[in-house]
Amino acid sequence: MKEKLTVVKVGGKIVEEESSLKQLLHDFAKIEGHKVLVHGGGRSATKIAAELGIESQMVNGRRITDAAMLDVVTMVYGGLVNKKIVAGLQAQGMNALGLTGADMNVIRSHKRPVKEIDYGFVGDVDQVNGNILGKLIDEGMVPVMAPLTHDGKGNMLNTNADTIAGETAKALANQYDVTLMFCFEKKGVLSDPENDESVISHITEEDFQRYTQDGTIQGGMIPKLENAFSAIHAGVSKVIITQATAIDGTQGTIIEK
Amino acid sequence: MKEKLTVVKVGGKIVEEESSLKQLLHDFAKIEGHKVLVHGGGRSATKIAAELGIESQMVNGRRITDAAMLDVVTMVYGGLVNKKIVAGLQAQGMNALGLTGADMNVIRSHKRPVKEIDYGFVGDVDQVNGNILGKLIDEGMVPVMAPLTHDGKGNMLNTNADTIAGETAKALANQYDVTLMFCFEKKGVLSDPENDESVISHITEEDFQRYTQDGTIQGGMIPKLENAFSAIHAGVSKVIITQATAIDGTQGTIIEK
Repeated sequence: MKEKLTVVKVGGKIVEEESSLKQLLHDFAKIEGHKVLVHGGGRSATKIAAELGIESQMVNGRRITDAAMLDVVTMVYGGLVNKKIVAGLQAQGMNALGLTGADMNVIRSHKRPVKEIDYGFVGDVDQVNGNILGKLIDEGMVPVMAPLTHDGKGNMLNTNADTIAGETAKALANQYDVTLMFCFEKKGVLSDPENDESVISHITEEDFQRYTQDGTIQGGMIPKLENAFSAIHAGVSKVIITQATAIDGTQGTIIEK
Repeated sequence: MKEKLTVVKVGGKIVEEESSLKQLLHDFAKIEGHKVLVHGGGRSATKIAAELGIESQMVNGRRITDAAMLDVVTMVYGGLVNKKIVAGLQAQGMNALGLTGADMNVIRSHKRPVKEIDYGFVGDVDQVNGNILGKLIDEGMVPVMAPLTHDGKGNMLNTNADTIAGETAKALANQYDVTLMFCFEKKGVLSDPENDESVISHITEEDFQRYTQDGTIQGGMIPKLENAFSAIHAGVSKVIITQATAIDGTQGTIIEK
Protein backbone atom coordinates (compact mmCIF):
# COMPACT_ATOMS: atom_id res chain seq x y z
CA MET A 1 0.00 0.00 0.00
CA LYS A 2 1.41 3.33 -1.03
CA GLU A 3 1.21 6.19 1.45
CA LYS A 4 -1.24 8.99 0.77
CA LEU A 5 -0.01 12.27 -0.71
CA THR A 6 -2.08 15.31 -1.67
CA VAL A 7 -0.90 17.94 -4.13
CA VAL A 8 -2.92 21.12 -3.64
CA LYS A 9 -2.78 23.87 -6.23
CA VAL A 10 -4.09 27.26 -5.19
CA GLY A 11 -4.34 30.34 -7.35
CA GLY A 12 -3.01 33.75 -6.66
CA LYS A 13 -6.00 35.38 -5.04
CA ILE A 14 -6.13 33.05 -2.06
CA VAL A 15 -2.46 33.33 -1.14
CA GLU A 16 -2.19 37.05 -1.78
CA GLU A 17 -4.65 38.15 0.87
CA GLU A 18 -3.59 37.87 4.48
CA SER A 19 -6.89 36.52 5.82
CA SER A 20 -7.61 33.96 3.10
CA LEU A 21 -3.98 32.79 3.18
CA LYS A 22 -4.25 32.23 6.92
CA GLN A 23 -7.42 30.17 6.49
CA LEU A 24 -5.86 28.17 3.67
CA LEU A 25 -2.74 27.31 5.68
CA HIS A 26 -4.95 26.28 8.58
CA ASP A 27 -7.05 23.99 6.33
CA PHE A 28 -3.96 22.69 4.52
CA ALA A 29 -2.40 21.73 7.86
CA LYS A 30 -5.38 19.49 8.54
CA ILE A 31 -4.97 17.40 5.39
CA GLU A 32 -3.69 14.00 6.49
CA GLY A 33 -0.66 12.31 5.01
CA HIS A 34 2.11 13.78 2.91
CA LYS A 35 1.44 16.98 1.03
CA VAL A 36 2.72 19.46 -1.53
CA LEU A 37 1.44 22.98 -2.08
CA VAL A 38 1.68 24.62 -5.51
CA HIS A 39 0.80 28.30 -5.72
CA GLY A 40 0.19 31.01 -8.27
CA GLY A 41 0.62 34.71 -7.75
CA GLY A 42 -0.49 36.36 -10.96
CA ARG A 43 -2.44 39.17 -9.34
CA SER A 44 0.53 40.27 -7.25
CA ALA A 45 2.82 40.03 -10.27
CA THR A 46 0.47 42.21 -12.31
CA LYS A 47 0.16 44.73 -9.48
CA ILE A 48 3.89 45.00 -8.80
CA ALA A 49 4.71 45.07 -12.51
CA ALA A 50 2.29 47.99 -12.91
CA GLU A 51 3.91 49.82 -10.00
CA LEU A 52 7.27 49.29 -11.71
CA GLY A 53 5.85 50.66 -14.95
CA ILE A 54 5.81 47.27 -16.68
CA GLU A 55 2.66 46.46 -18.57
CA SER A 56 1.17 42.96 -18.23
CA GLN A 57 0.28 41.48 -21.58
CA MET A 58 -2.02 38.47 -21.59
CA VAL A 59 -2.99 36.22 -24.50
CA ASN A 60 -5.72 33.62 -23.89
CA GLY A 61 -5.25 34.12 -20.18
CA ARG A 62 -1.52 33.41 -20.41
CA ARG A 63 1.09 35.99 -19.50
CA ILE A 64 3.59 37.18 -22.09
CA THR A 65 6.88 37.11 -20.19
CA ASP A 66 9.57 39.44 -21.50
CA ALA A 67 12.87 39.90 -19.61
CA ALA A 68 11.49 42.60 -17.31
CA MET A 69 8.39 40.55 -16.54
CA LEU A 70 10.55 37.47 -15.88
CA ASP A 71 12.34 39.44 -13.16
CA VAL A 72 8.97 40.44 -11.71
CA VAL A 73 7.56 36.90 -11.60
CA THR A 74 10.84 35.54 -10.25
CA MET A 75 10.65 38.09 -7.43
CA VAL A 76 6.97 37.78 -6.75
CA TYR A 77 6.38 34.03 -7.15
CA GLY A 78 9.79 32.80 -5.95
CA GLY A 79 10.24 35.42 -3.24
CA LEU A 80 7.25 37.33 -1.94
CA VAL A 81 4.43 34.80 -2.32
CA ASN A 82 6.50 31.65 -1.77
CA LYS A 83 8.22 32.84 1.40
CA LYS A 84 5.02 34.16 2.95
CA ILE A 85 3.51 30.71 2.53
CA VAL A 86 6.62 28.93 3.80
CA ALA A 87 6.86 31.13 6.90
CA GLY A 88 3.12 30.68 7.47
CA LEU A 89 3.34 26.89 7.23
CA GLN A 90 6.34 26.83 9.56
CA ALA A 91 4.25 28.73 12.08
CA GLN A 92 1.62 25.96 11.74
CA GLY A 93 4.27 23.38 12.57
CA MET A 94 4.78 22.13 9.03
CA ASN A 95 8.35 21.86 7.81
CA ALA A 96 7.81 23.74 4.56
CA LEU A 97 10.48 24.19 1.92
CA GLY A 98 9.99 26.68 -0.89
CA LEU A 99 11.09 25.51 -4.29
CA THR A 100 11.29 26.76 -7.83
CA GLY A 101 12.20 24.28 -10.55
CA ALA A 102 15.81 25.48 -10.38
CA ASP A 103 16.23 24.52 -6.73
CA MET A 104 17.76 21.05 -6.57
CA ASN A 105 16.98 20.90 -10.30
CA VAL A 106 13.47 19.84 -9.35
CA ILE A 107 11.78 20.89 -12.59
CA ARG A 108 13.62 21.25 -15.85
CA SER A 109 11.85 22.92 -18.75
CA HIS A 110 12.55 24.47 -22.14
CA LYS A 111 11.55 27.87 -23.44
CA ARG A 112 8.31 27.54 -25.37
CA PRO A 113 8.99 27.64 -29.12
CA VAL A 114 7.52 30.63 -30.91
CA LYS A 115 4.57 29.70 -33.13
CA GLU A 116 1.79 32.23 -33.67
CA ILE A 117 2.50 33.82 -30.32
CA ASP A 118 5.84 34.57 -28.66
CA TYR A 119 5.14 33.93 -24.98
CA GLY A 120 8.69 34.97 -24.13
CA PHE A 121 10.40 33.41 -21.12
CA VAL A 122 7.78 30.75 -20.54
CA GLY A 123 8.82 27.18 -19.82
CA ASP A 124 7.20 23.96 -20.97
CA VAL A 125 8.03 21.22 -18.47
CA ASP A 126 10.43 18.46 -19.55
CA GLN A 127 10.93 16.64 -16.28
CA VAL A 128 9.98 16.72 -12.63
CA ASN A 129 12.51 15.04 -10.34
CA GLY A 130 10.17 12.82 -8.34
CA ASN A 131 13.03 11.06 -6.57
CA ILE A 132 14.38 14.13 -4.89
CA LEU A 133 10.89 15.36 -4.03
CA GLY A 134 10.05 11.94 -2.59
CA LYS A 135 13.16 12.00 -0.45
CA LEU A 136 12.24 15.37 1.03
CA ILE A 137 8.64 14.32 1.55
CA ASP A 138 9.69 11.10 3.29
CA GLU A 139 11.81 13.20 5.65
CA GLY A 140 8.68 15.11 6.63
CA MET A 141 9.12 18.16 4.43
CA VAL A 142 6.24 19.96 2.75
CA PRO A 143 7.43 21.29 -0.64
CA VAL A 144 5.89 24.65 -1.54
CA MET A 145 6.29 25.08 -5.27
CA ALA A 146 6.34 28.40 -7.09
CA PRO A 147 5.29 28.47 -10.77
CA LEU A 148 8.85 28.87 -12.01
CA THR A 149 11.18 26.38 -13.68
CA HIS A 150 14.64 26.57 -15.23
CA ASP A 151 16.19 25.49 -18.51
CA GLY A 152 19.48 24.16 -17.14
CA LYS A 153 21.35 26.88 -19.00
CA GLY A 154 21.02 29.46 -16.26
CA ASN A 155 17.60 30.86 -17.14
CA MET A 156 14.51 30.89 -14.99
CA LEU A 157 11.25 30.37 -16.91
CA ASN A 158 7.70 31.34 -16.02
CA THR A 159 5.54 28.21 -15.88
CA ASN A 160 1.81 27.69 -15.42
CA ALA A 161 0.99 26.63 -11.85
CA ASP A 162 -1.67 24.09 -12.97
CA THR A 163 1.00 22.45 -15.12
CA ILE A 164 3.48 22.39 -12.24
CA ALA A 165 0.85 20.76 -10.01
CA GLY A 166 -0.17 18.22 -12.66
CA GLU A 167 3.38 17.23 -13.59
CA THR A 168 4.44 17.03 -9.95
CA ALA A 169 1.48 14.80 -9.11
CA LYS A 170 2.37 12.51 -12.04
CA ALA A 171 6.04 12.36 -11.04
CA LEU A 172 5.06 11.24 -7.54
CA ALA A 173 2.37 8.75 -8.59
CA ASN A 174 4.69 5.75 -8.63
CA GLN A 175 5.78 6.42 -5.05
CA TYR A 176 2.51 7.57 -3.45
CA ASP A 177 -1.26 7.25 -3.64
CA VAL A 178 -1.69 10.76 -5.05
CA THR A 179 -4.71 13.04 -4.89
CA LEU A 180 -4.36 16.19 -6.98
CA MET A 181 -6.53 19.13 -5.96
CA PHE A 182 -7.06 22.12 -8.21
CA CYS A 183 -8.58 25.04 -6.30
CA PHE A 184 -10.33 27.83 -8.12
CA GLU A 185 -13.06 30.35 -7.43
CA LYS A 186 -16.07 28.03 -8.00
CA LYS A 187 -17.23 25.07 -5.91
CA GLY A 188 -16.43 22.67 -8.73
CA VAL A 189 -17.23 22.05 -12.37
CA LEU A 190 -20.74 23.45 -12.90
CA SER A 191 -23.47 21.97 -15.06
CA ASP A 192 -25.07 25.42 -15.21
CA PRO A 193 -22.55 28.29 -15.28
CA GLU A 194 -25.26 30.59 -13.88
CA ASN A 195 -25.83 28.38 -10.84
CA ASP A 196 -22.88 28.12 -8.43
CA GLU A 197 -24.54 25.20 -6.67
CA SER A 198 -24.81 23.03 -9.79
CA VAL A 199 -21.58 21.17 -9.05
CA ILE A 200 -21.04 17.99 -11.06
CA SER A 201 -19.81 15.60 -8.40
CA HIS A 202 -18.07 13.12 -10.72
CA ILE A 203 -16.88 13.46 -14.31
CA THR A 204 -15.71 10.65 -16.56
CA GLU A 205 -13.82 11.20 -19.78
CA GLU A 206 -17.01 10.45 -21.76
CA ASP A 207 -18.94 13.05 -19.70
CA PHE A 208 -16.18 15.53 -20.39
CA GLN A 209 -16.40 15.03 -24.15
CA ARG A 210 -20.17 15.35 -24.08
CA TYR A 211 -20.07 18.47 -21.88
CA THR A 212 -17.51 20.23 -24.08
CA GLN A 213 -19.50 19.35 -27.21
CA ASP A 214 -22.77 20.68 -25.80
CA GLY A 215 -21.05 23.76 -24.36
CA THR A 216 -21.69 22.97 -20.67
CA ILE A 217 -17.93 23.05 -20.09
CA GLN A 218 -15.96 25.80 -21.80
CA GLY A 219 -13.13 28.30 -21.48
CA GLY A 220 -10.45 27.83 -18.85
CA MET A 221 -12.13 24.74 -17.45
CA ILE A 222 -11.22 22.74 -20.56
CA PRO A 223 -7.40 22.77 -20.09
CA LYS A 224 -7.93 22.21 -16.34
CA LEU A 225 -9.91 19.03 -17.03
CA GLU A 226 -7.50 17.93 -19.75
CA ASN A 227 -4.76 18.30 -17.14
CA ALA A 228 -6.86 16.25 -14.73
CA PHE A 229 -7.43 13.34 -17.14
CA SER A 230 -3.77 13.40 -18.18
CA ALA A 231 -2.84 13.04 -14.48
CA ILE A 232 -5.27 10.13 -14.03
CA HIS A 233 -3.82 8.38 -17.09
CA ALA A 234 -0.33 8.82 -15.59
CA GLY A 235 -1.28 7.04 -12.36
CA VAL A 236 -2.66 9.79 -10.14
CA SER A 237 -5.47 8.21 -8.09
CA LYS A 238 -7.86 11.10 -7.87
CA VAL A 239 -8.23 14.68 -9.07
CA ILE A 240 -10.53 17.09 -7.24
CA ILE A 241 -11.59 20.45 -8.62
CA THR A 242 -12.90 22.65 -5.84
CA GLN A 243 -12.61 25.89 -3.90
CA ALA A 244 -9.63 26.78 -1.75
CA THR A 245 -12.05 27.03 1.18
CA ALA A 246 -13.04 23.38 0.72
CA ILE A 247 -9.84 21.34 0.58
CA ASP A 248 -10.93 18.60 2.96
CA GLY A 249 -11.43 16.28 -0.01
CA THR A 250 -15.18 15.84 0.42
CA GLN A 251 -16.37 18.62 -1.87
CA GLY A 252 -16.06 19.66 -5.49
CA THR A 253 -15.86 17.67 -8.69
CA ILE A 254 -14.02 14.35 -8.57
CA ILE A 255 -12.21 12.66 -11.45
CA GLU A 256 -11.09 9.09 -10.88
CA LYS A 257 -9.84 6.22 -13.00
CA MET B 1 39.56 14.09 9.48
CA LYS B 2 36.58 16.29 8.77
CA GLU B 3 35.77 17.04 5.15
CA LYS B 4 36.45 20.53 3.85
CA LEU B 5 33.61 23.01 3.50
CA THR B 6 33.80 26.64 2.36
CA VAL B 7 31.15 29.23 3.17
CA VAL B 8 31.47 32.14 0.73
CA LYS B 9 29.66 35.38 1.44
CA VAL B 10 29.34 37.81 -1.43
CA GLY B 11 27.77 41.24 -1.33
CA GLY B 12 25.09 42.61 -3.54
CA LYS B 13 27.17 44.33 -6.20
CA ILE B 14 28.84 41.14 -7.44
CA VAL B 15 25.66 39.10 -7.80
CA GLU B 16 23.55 41.90 -9.22
CA GLU B 17 25.56 42.43 -12.40
CA GLU B 18 25.32 39.78 -15.10
CA SER B 19 29.05 39.69 -15.97
CA SER B 20 30.45 39.70 -12.43
CA LEU B 21 27.86 37.12 -11.34
CA LYS B 22 28.93 34.85 -14.19
CA GLN B 23 32.60 35.15 -13.20
CA LEU B 24 31.76 34.54 -9.54
CA LEU B 25 29.78 31.37 -10.28
CA HIS B 26 32.62 30.14 -12.46
CA ASP B 27 35.19 30.75 -9.69
CA PHE B 28 32.86 29.35 -7.02
CA ALA B 29 32.46 26.15 -9.04
CA LYS B 30 36.22 25.64 -8.86
CA ILE B 31 36.38 25.66 -5.06
CA GLU B 32 37.04 22.10 -3.96
CA GLY B 33 35.00 20.29 -1.36
CA HIS B 34 31.57 21.13 0.01
CA LYS B 35 30.35 24.68 -0.24
CA VAL B 36 27.69 27.16 0.73
CA LEU B 37 27.04 30.54 -0.90
CA VAL B 38 25.53 33.39 1.11
CA HIS B 39 24.52 36.49 -0.82
CA GLY B 40 23.39 40.05 -0.26
CA GLY B 41 21.33 42.13 -2.61
CA GLY B 42 21.01 45.54 -1.00
CA ARG B 43 21.61 47.57 -4.14
CA SER B 44 18.82 45.78 -6.02
CA ALA B 45 16.51 46.15 -3.04
CA THR B 46 17.20 49.88 -2.86
CA LYS B 47 16.69 50.27 -6.61
CA ILE B 48 13.43 48.31 -6.75
CA ALA B 49 12.13 49.97 -3.59
CA ALA B 50 12.80 53.36 -5.19
CA GLU B 51 10.95 52.30 -8.35
CA LEU B 52 8.03 51.27 -6.13
CA GLY B 53 8.13 54.64 -4.39
CA ILE B 54 9.51 53.21 -1.13
CA GLU B 55 12.35 55.15 0.40
CA SER B 56 15.34 53.26 1.77
CA GLN B 57 16.32 54.44 5.21
CA MET B 58 19.74 53.43 6.48
CA VAL B 59 21.20 53.91 9.97
CA ASN B 60 24.91 53.05 10.45
CA GLY B 61 24.83 51.19 7.17
CA ARG B 62 21.88 49.06 8.29
CA ARG B 63 18.54 49.13 6.54
CA ILE B 64 15.42 50.13 8.43
CA THR B 65 12.89 47.51 7.38
CA ASP B 66 9.25 48.56 7.61
CA ALA B 67 6.45 46.30 6.32
CA ALA B 68 6.70 47.59 2.74
CA MET B 69 10.48 47.22 2.74
CA LEU B 70 10.17 43.70 4.16
CA ASP B 71 8.10 42.76 1.11
CA VAL B 72 10.76 44.28 -1.13
CA VAL B 73 13.68 42.43 0.46
CA THR B 74 11.68 39.19 0.56
CA MET B 75 11.07 39.55 -3.18
CA VAL B 76 14.50 40.72 -4.13
CA TYR B 77 16.72 38.61 -1.86
CA GLY B 78 14.56 35.48 -1.71
CA GLY B 79 13.33 35.63 -5.29
CA LEU B 80 15.20 37.69 -7.84
CA VAL B 81 18.78 37.47 -6.60
CA ASN B 82 18.57 34.01 -5.05
CA LYS B 83 16.99 32.30 -8.05
CA LYS B 84 19.38 33.93 -10.55
CA ILE B 85 22.27 32.46 -8.57
CA VAL B 86 20.60 29.06 -8.20
CA ALA B 87 19.82 28.81 -11.93
CA GLY B 88 23.37 29.96 -12.71
CA LEU B 89 24.94 27.35 -10.44
CA GLN B 90 22.71 24.64 -11.88
CA ALA B 91 24.01 25.61 -15.33
CA GLN B 92 27.55 25.11 -13.95
CA GLY B 93 26.61 21.59 -12.85
CA MET B 94 26.21 22.39 -9.16
CA ASN B 95 23.07 21.16 -7.46
CA ALA B 96 22.16 24.47 -5.85
CA LEU B 97 19.22 24.93 -3.50
CA GLY B 98 18.05 28.41 -2.59
CA LEU B 99 17.13 28.89 1.03
CA THR B 100 15.84 31.55 3.33
CA GLY B 101 15.82 30.86 7.04
CA ALA B 102 12.15 29.89 6.81
CA ASP B 103 12.78 27.05 4.35
CA MET B 104 13.14 23.83 6.33
CA ASN B 105 13.32 26.09 9.38
CA VAL B 106 17.02 26.51 8.63
CA ILE B 107 17.49 29.80 10.51
CA ARG B 108 15.22 30.92 13.31
CA SER B 109 15.54 34.48 14.55
CA HIS B 110 13.68 37.05 16.62
CA LYS B 111 12.74 40.59 15.74
CA ARG B 112 15.41 42.93 17.02
CA PRO B 113 14.20 44.68 20.20
CA VAL B 114 13.79 48.44 19.86
CA LYS B 115 16.44 50.40 21.78
CA GLU B 116 17.56 53.78 20.43
CA ILE B 117 16.70 52.73 16.90
CA ASP B 118 13.73 50.78 15.61
CA TYR B 119 15.19 48.69 12.81
CA GLY B 120 11.74 47.26 12.05
CA PHE B 121 11.45 43.74 10.66
CA VAL B 122 15.08 42.83 11.23
CA GLY B 123 15.98 39.46 12.69
CA ASP B 124 18.75 38.61 15.12
CA VAL B 125 19.70 34.96 14.65
CA ASP B 126 18.77 32.48 17.38
CA GLN B 127 19.69 29.21 15.73
CA VAL B 128 21.02 27.75 12.51
CA ASN B 129 19.97 24.16 11.89
CA GLY B 130 23.36 22.65 11.08
CA ASN B 131 21.99 19.10 10.99
CA ILE B 132 19.63 19.71 8.12
CA LEU B 133 22.18 21.76 6.22
CA GLY B 134 24.76 19.02 6.74
CA LYS B 135 22.35 16.41 5.41
CA LEU B 136 21.76 18.41 2.23
CA ILE B 137 25.46 19.11 1.80
CA ASP B 138 26.36 15.45 2.25
CA GLU B 139 23.88 14.62 -0.50
CA GLY B 140 25.82 16.92 -2.83
CA MET B 141 23.66 20.01 -2.56
CA VAL B 142 25.03 23.54 -2.57
CA PRO B 143 22.87 25.73 -0.29
CA VAL B 144 22.47 29.28 -1.57
CA MET B 145 21.35 31.40 1.35
CA ALA B 146 19.46 34.66 1.10
CA PRO B 147 19.78 37.18 3.95
CA LEU B 148 16.32 36.43 5.30
CA THR B 149 15.23 34.49 8.37
CA HIS B 150 11.91 33.79 10.09
CA ASP B 151 10.60 34.07 13.62
CA GLY B 152 8.59 30.85 13.69
CA LYS B 153 5.38 32.86 14.05
CA GLY B 154 4.84 33.36 10.34
CA ASN B 155 7.03 36.42 9.80
CA MET B 156 10.02 36.75 7.54
CA LEU B 157 12.78 38.97 8.92
CA ASN B 158 15.54 40.86 7.12
CA THR B 159 18.92 39.63 8.38
CA ASN B 160 22.46 40.80 7.71
CA ALA B 161 24.23 38.52 5.21
CA ASP B 162 27.56 38.62 7.09
CA THR B 163 25.71 37.36 10.16
CA ILE B 164 24.02 34.58 8.17
CA ALA B 165 27.41 33.51 6.80
CA GLY B 166 29.10 33.64 10.20
CA GLU B 167 26.36 31.77 12.04
CA THR B 168 26.09 29.16 9.28
CA ALA B 169 29.84 28.58 9.34
CA LYS B 170 29.71 28.14 13.12
CA ALA B 171 26.76 25.74 12.95
CA LEU B 172 28.66 23.54 10.49
CA ALA B 173 32.01 23.64 12.29
CA ASN B 174 31.43 20.48 14.30
CA GLN B 175 30.71 18.50 11.11
CA TYR B 176 33.24 20.00 8.68
CA ASP B 177 36.63 21.68 8.44
CA VAL B 178 35.11 25.09 7.67
CA THR B 179 36.66 28.03 5.86
CA LEU B 180 34.56 31.18 5.95
CA MET B 181 35.19 33.71 3.22
CA PHE B 182 33.90 37.26 3.39
CA CYS B 183 34.11 38.99 0.02
CA PHE B 184 34.02 42.76 -0.23
CA GLU B 185 35.31 45.45 -2.56
CA LYS B 186 38.93 45.57 -1.29
CA LYS B 187 41.65 42.94 -1.61
CA GLY B 188 41.66 42.39 2.13
CA VAL B 189 42.12 44.28 5.38
CA LEU B 190 44.41 47.21 4.54
CA SER B 191 47.15 48.65 6.73
CA ASP B 192 46.86 51.89 4.76
CA PRO B 193 43.31 52.75 3.65
CA GLU B 194 44.80 54.89 0.86
CA ASN B 195 46.78 52.00 -0.57
CA ASP B 196 44.72 49.12 -1.99
CA GLU B 197 47.81 46.92 -2.14
CA SER B 198 48.59 47.20 1.59
CA VAL B 199 46.80 43.98 2.44
CA ILE B 200 47.53 42.58 5.90
CA SER B 201 48.02 38.88 5.15
CA HIS B 202 47.31 37.58 8.66
CA ILE B 203 45.59 39.17 11.65
CA THR B 204 45.61 37.87 15.20
CA GLU B 205 43.21 39.09 17.85
CA GLU B 206 46.03 41.13 19.41
CA ASP B 207 46.78 42.75 16.04
CA PHE B 208 43.09 43.56 15.68
CA GLN B 209 42.95 45.31 19.04
CA ARG B 210 46.09 47.30 18.26
CA TYR B 211 44.84 48.24 14.77
CA THR B 212 41.46 49.42 16.04
CA GLN B 213 43.13 51.43 18.82
CA ASP B 214 45.55 53.17 16.46
CA GLY B 215 42.80 53.71 13.85
CA THR B 216 44.29 51.51 11.12
CA ILE B 217 41.09 49.47 11.14
CA GLN B 218 37.81 51.36 11.41
CA GLY B 219 34.23 51.60 10.22
CA GLY B 220 32.51 48.59 8.67
CA MET B 221 35.66 46.48 8.92
CA ILE B 222 35.35 46.29 12.71
CA PRO B 223 32.09 44.23 12.86
CA LYS B 224 33.38 42.11 9.96
CA LEU B 225 36.49 41.20 11.95
CA GLU B 226 34.52 40.73 15.17
CA ASN B 227 32.37 38.30 13.20
CA ALA B 228 35.52 36.57 11.99
CA PHE B 229 37.03 36.10 15.45
CA SER B 230 33.70 34.96 16.83
CA ALA B 231 33.61 32.28 14.10
CA ILE B 232 37.15 31.16 14.92
CA HIS B 233 36.28 30.89 18.61
CA ALA B 234 33.28 28.73 17.66
CA GLY B 235 35.42 26.21 15.79
CA VAL B 236 35.65 27.60 12.26
CA SER B 237 39.14 26.74 10.99
CA LYS B 238 39.87 29.78 8.90
CA VAL B 239 38.31 33.09 7.91
CA ILE B 240 39.43 34.89 4.77
CA ILE B 241 38.54 38.47 3.94
CA THR B 242 39.06 39.14 0.26
CA GLN B 243 37.56 40.23 -3.04
CA ALA B 244 34.88 38.27 -4.85
CA THR B 245 37.30 38.03 -7.79
CA ALA B 246 39.81 36.18 -5.60
CA ILE B 247 38.01 33.32 -3.92
CA ASP B 248 40.63 30.66 -4.58
CA GLY B 249 41.71 30.87 -0.95
CA THR B 250 45.25 32.13 -1.63
CA GLN B 251 44.59 35.86 -1.38
CA GLY B 252 43.29 38.39 1.11
CA THR B 253 43.55 38.61 4.88
CA ILE B 254 43.55 35.35 6.82
CA ILE B 255 42.35 34.85 10.38
CA GLU B 256 43.16 31.52 11.99
CA LYS B 257 43.12 30.09 15.49
